[in-house]
Amino acid sequence: MNLVPIGSGALGEALARVQREIDSVFDAFLPVPADTRARLVEAMRYAAIGGGKRVRPLLVVSTAELFGVDRDAALRTGAAIEAIHVYSLIHDDLPCMDDDDLRHGKPTVHKAFDEATAVLAGDALHALAFEILSDTGTSADPFVRSELIATLGKASGMHGMAGGQMMDMVADEEGVDYDLHTITRLQQLKTGALLAASVEMGAVLGRVPPEGRAHLRAYARDIGLAFQIADDLLDVEGDADKAGKALRKDEEQGKQTFVTLMGVEAARDQARVLVDQAIGHLGSHGHEADTLRALARFIVERDR
Amino acid sequence: MNLVPIGSGALGEALARVQREIDSVFDAFLPVPADTRARLVEAMRYAAIGGGKRVRPLLVVSTAELFGVDRDAALRTGAAIEAIHVYSLIHDDLPCMDDDDLRHGKPTVHKAFDEATAVLAGDALHALAFEILSDTGTSADPFVRSELIATLGKASGMHGMAGGQMMDMVADEEGVDYDLHTITRLQQLKTGALLAASVEMGAVLGRVPPEGRAHLRAYARDIGLAFQIADDLLDVEGDADKAGKALRKDEEQGKQTFVTLMGVEAARDQARVLVDQAIGHLGSHGHEADTLRALARFIVERDR
Repeated sequence: MNLVPIGSGALGEALARVQREIDSVFDAFLPVPADTRARLVEAMRYAAIGGGKRVRPLLVVSTAELFGVDRDAALRTGAAIEAIHVYSLIHDDLPCMDDDDLRHGKPTVHKAFDEATAVLAGDALHALAFEILSDTGTSADPFVRSELIATLGKASGMHGMAGGQMMDMVADEEGVDYDLHTITRLQQLKTGALLAASVEMGAVLGRVPPEGRAHLRAYARDIGLAFQIADDLLDVEGDADKAGKALRKDEEQGKQTFVTLMGVEAARDQARVLVDQAIGHLGSHGHEADTLRALARFIVERDR
Repeated sequence: MNLVPIGSGALGEALARVQREIDSVFDAFLPVPADTRARLVEAMRYAAIGGGKRVRPLLVVSTAELFGVDRDAALRTGAAIEAIHVYSLIHDDLPCMDDDDLRHGKPTVHKAFDEATAVLAGDALHALAFEILSDTGTSADPFVRSELIATLGKASGMHGMAGGQMMDMVADEEGVDYDLHTITRLQQLKTGALLAASVEMGAVLGRVPPEGRAHLRAYARDIGLAFQIADDLLDVEGDADKAGKALRKDEEQGKQTFVTLMGVEAARDQARVLVDQAIGHLGSHGHEADTLRALARFIVERDR
């Protein structure tokens, strides 16, 4: 089952275009071999192609555009980040983790295939991300390739996404109650790090020196947090059919979220403040940053 | 429980030294954080430190030595490859994969911690490998870093280790009987790719151009195959206490291996031929390649 298009107007078109393009990149990198590895690659294709909003790739492409980067390079970089995102969803959905049956409106990988295939497909997508980034087709400049890889490795490992997932897991299992400060830190790692890396890597492609990336980092930090607050709100108020996954899980599990800690209204206000703040950080850019602005707004207004 | 030293004489000393050094590299890269990510890093340390023969790191270091590479750079590169090897063992041992309780003489990660922690610790070690290689401390030359990463990404992903694991899994589950040609191909992917990458990455550190690596590639291909034949022989004839893991699994599972396809004697002969052949490929090197020669012999003579 494919999801219906999301977003409207220029942003909807930009998302739809990136969705098609990222599918093409994955399709090119994932030809099904003629031996028994076929099941692995079929599982990778099942998870990676034809699903997902592709917010991270659009962040890379839109940031890279500010600096006149070649679109193919930005798309390959976006596909690498998306490969990490997809692998993390496959592993998160496993019975020993969140035990989810539905993702992007279709059975999760371990349901459609089996658990062992899901573990391996996640691992292989993880490796694929670094294969794509180390390929000279992504950037002819080894310094750029190496910096892209360093950024993604840091954002996805124990200092980023995987670290955040562990904090989340410990809270679930041991019933630790985090305060707002710790929840913020957890989410900055779990989802924020990869969203921030998307913007950062767009700037790396554009050869923007680290000191020139401060406003983009601030933008990314704010939308990352807004994104997670919006996710928590969706879990409470969203429509599971539109979301294409199970909702109301936080409440069932008695989980601390921005919404349980702040209440629905304050959380929604906070998300809006963060989005305004994020857009404010783009003040030095003109219309060329309109997609990034629209994306920030979309993040709190989306229904999945 | 720590395993007793393995190997004797100069090779035994070389292995023991690399074992200590690799433990130090992991120790430095894995400080335990003061928050709830601690469990993740403790599981990573549990799996990565104080176990394993460190054959792959010794291959990197010994190859790098031929070309006068700084030892620290070779050790970091060796630790990156070992991180990939360790992550693959953690995931392989999971209940949904090989369901093993013992590894290196101690409980597997999902037994000592839990399944979810094992999945995440594997994922985080996977990311750590690429973090280490993209760090300027490993090589100041971005071209070298990028080539190291490309080599490791290819060797560990669907075109290498993960692909071989899937071929293996399909054979186990669907009872497909592979012929000797297909078993050879499977093993070249599953274990050979990472062993070959170890030698290749040593040469990359030494800035040996691809055309100058042909004899090293031939050496690596031969010892990779000999290594797997020796593993199959160990599964039949070995001592589980020394091996620190369950043996006789191939027979129980009715699995096709070099030993079932060729018989014990012919398999042992074949392993010896491969080792002689591997050593022959090092003919252009003098005594500086003695560790690589001794390592080739050790691979078929080891008892675990």
